[in-house]
Amino acid sequence: MNERIGVVGVGRMGANMALRLRDVGYTVSAVNDLHPDTARKVAAEVGAKACANLVDVTAESDLILTVVTDDSAMRSIFDGSEKSLLHGAAGKTFVNFATVTPAVHLEVEEKARAAGAKTLEACMASSITQAREGTLYLMVGGDPAVFESVRPVLEALSASLRYIGPTGSAAKVKALVNMVMNINTAGLAEGLAVGDALGLDLTMLREVFSQTGANSQVLKTDGEDMQNRDHACYFSAAHAAKDSGIALELAREANVVTPLAAATKAQYDLMVKAGLGALDKSGIAELTFRDRRPSEI
Amino acid sequence: MNERIGVVGVGRMGANMALRLRDVGYTVSAVNDLHPDTARKVAAEVGAKACANLVDVTAESDLILTVVTDDSAMRSIFDGSEKSLLHGAAGKTFVNFATVTPAVHLEVEEKARAAGAKTLEACMASSITQAREGTLYLMVGGDPAVFESVRPVLEALSASLRYIGPTGSAAKVKALVNMVMNINTAGLAEGLAVGDALGLDLTMLREVFSQTGANSQVLKTDGEDMQNRDHACYFSAAHAAKDSGIALELAREANVVTPLAAATKAQYDLMVKAGLGALDKSGIAELTFRDRRPSEI
Repeated sequence: MNERIGVVGVGRMGANMALRLRDVGYTVSAVNDLHPDTARKVAAEVGAKACANLVDVTAESDLILTVVTDDSAMRSIFDGSEKSLLHGAAGKTFVNFATVTPAVHLEVEEKARAAGAKTLEACMASSITQAREGTLYLMVGGDPAVFESVRPVLEALSASLRYIGPTGSAAKVKALVNMVMNINTAGLAEGLAVGDALGLDLTMLREVFSQTGANSQVLKTDGEDMQNRDHACYFSAAHAAKDSGIALELAREANVVTPLAAATKAQYDLMVKAGLGALDKSGIAELTFRDRRPSEI
Repeated sequence: MNERIGVVGVGRMGANMALRLRDVGYTVSAVNDLHPDTARKVAAEVGAKACANLVDVTAESDLILTVVTDDSAMRSIFDGSEKSLLHGAAGKTFVNFATVTPAVHLEVEEKARAAGAKTLEACMASSITQAREGTLYLMVGGDPAVFESVRPVLEALSASLRYIGPTGSAAKVKALVNMVMNINTAGLAEGLAVGDALGLDLTMLREVFSQTGANSQVLKTDGEDMQNRDHACYFSAAHAAKDSGIALELAREANVVTPLAAATKAQYDLMVKAGLGALDKSGIAELTFRDRRPSEI
């Protein structure tokens, strides 16, 4: 537990992972965020240095966890310049948690190797509460030896830790998890919306769904929120749109026809367009319920 | 248990319900089917009379269970003519199990009332195995007094018996159950197909789905079958197309926008068009898996 851990990207997920690591006794040495105020706040909470520059995170840490938003952010922090995380990175290990296009993990691995550093992809299929409690569902891709070297840290963050395969494979699985989850969410929002328009009792309808072929994990996590319009954000509609986009691109490249995934992406894109992108993914019910649908779309 | 029970429509579901009722001691007095051979075979198994004419089923029975395929079949058996089930039906009770448009249950109820007969809708959210074992999930709509009068028979057929509300309401709930189930099925078939095209281990992928936000009842019932191309029919693609169509029409009438339900209906319609309508609903994976997709579509 004596390695120094840096965290790049301390939004809702990264901050809670840093807090968890501190709680179980790890040294969080440095944090960085696009928003300096956020970095300072989290740094104060976990006793780390708030670094304005990425190179300082690398200098202050043995192991760097990156928890950034998308492909562009990943490419930016690993861009190979003197200001990137890879400057002075020889001997360091990077574990990358962002949900990004699988190919980006391969690009980053290649650049890190050239800099004498090691990487691992660690894809999360969980949310904020699990980050805080160290009960993430983590899927790992990369060199098994690198995985073994950071396993204790990953175990401190997760309740379920699973090695998937070579770099990029965990991101593929993650993209498909979110693709199917988003489809089920969009479908549930339609079922409840039609039930509502027909005057059915939605509590009864959800219970029947839960006891039949309509049951799903998103019924448990999002059904009641859809009914009650409680869309406090755990996993935003904008993220859902992004993740469905990653999966759709994989499908397109693989020449697989996916009309449901396409329809789902279009719904989440519509939410973003309607200014609802910051709502939780359950907010898709704001599109489907007849009396909630924004008039401008 | 001394009422005489007739069964109209002894395909996979109706035949197994008749067998179950006989097993627990009821008298199955008469059966009828569009296919006379089927009627004769089931009649012999349960000790009933095989009736070529619907009026004979009514004459031979106190309680008549109808388990027909669609709106058209329901309207045909209750058409009010001298050859229909309603001829000589005064004092009889009809329990209608078919998945049909909710309005059809109301039409039939009205005609039966005019004939001095009673009706109940009993919508099933289960399949053949449950019919045989008396463990159907049954949702009932209609007059509560009629429900109470036939409750023992329905209990012999079901593990979960639920009164939903007035005539037509159970069919609405059933349509939404199947709409959401079909969406989840179509989405799962896309997720597994993309995973397959990406070279992922589908057994691993299904396990990850089952542990994450991608989990669903159809993952349990259909996931392995999609992987193994085992599409022996429990609930046919043609039925899925029909049921999604009922839900889509309810959505249209209620002015609810349902792109996922529409995309799902289109996929099941495509299966029917491609000659795959008799496969189980899991057969939708035959459309989505790149190397299985029929070349003519």
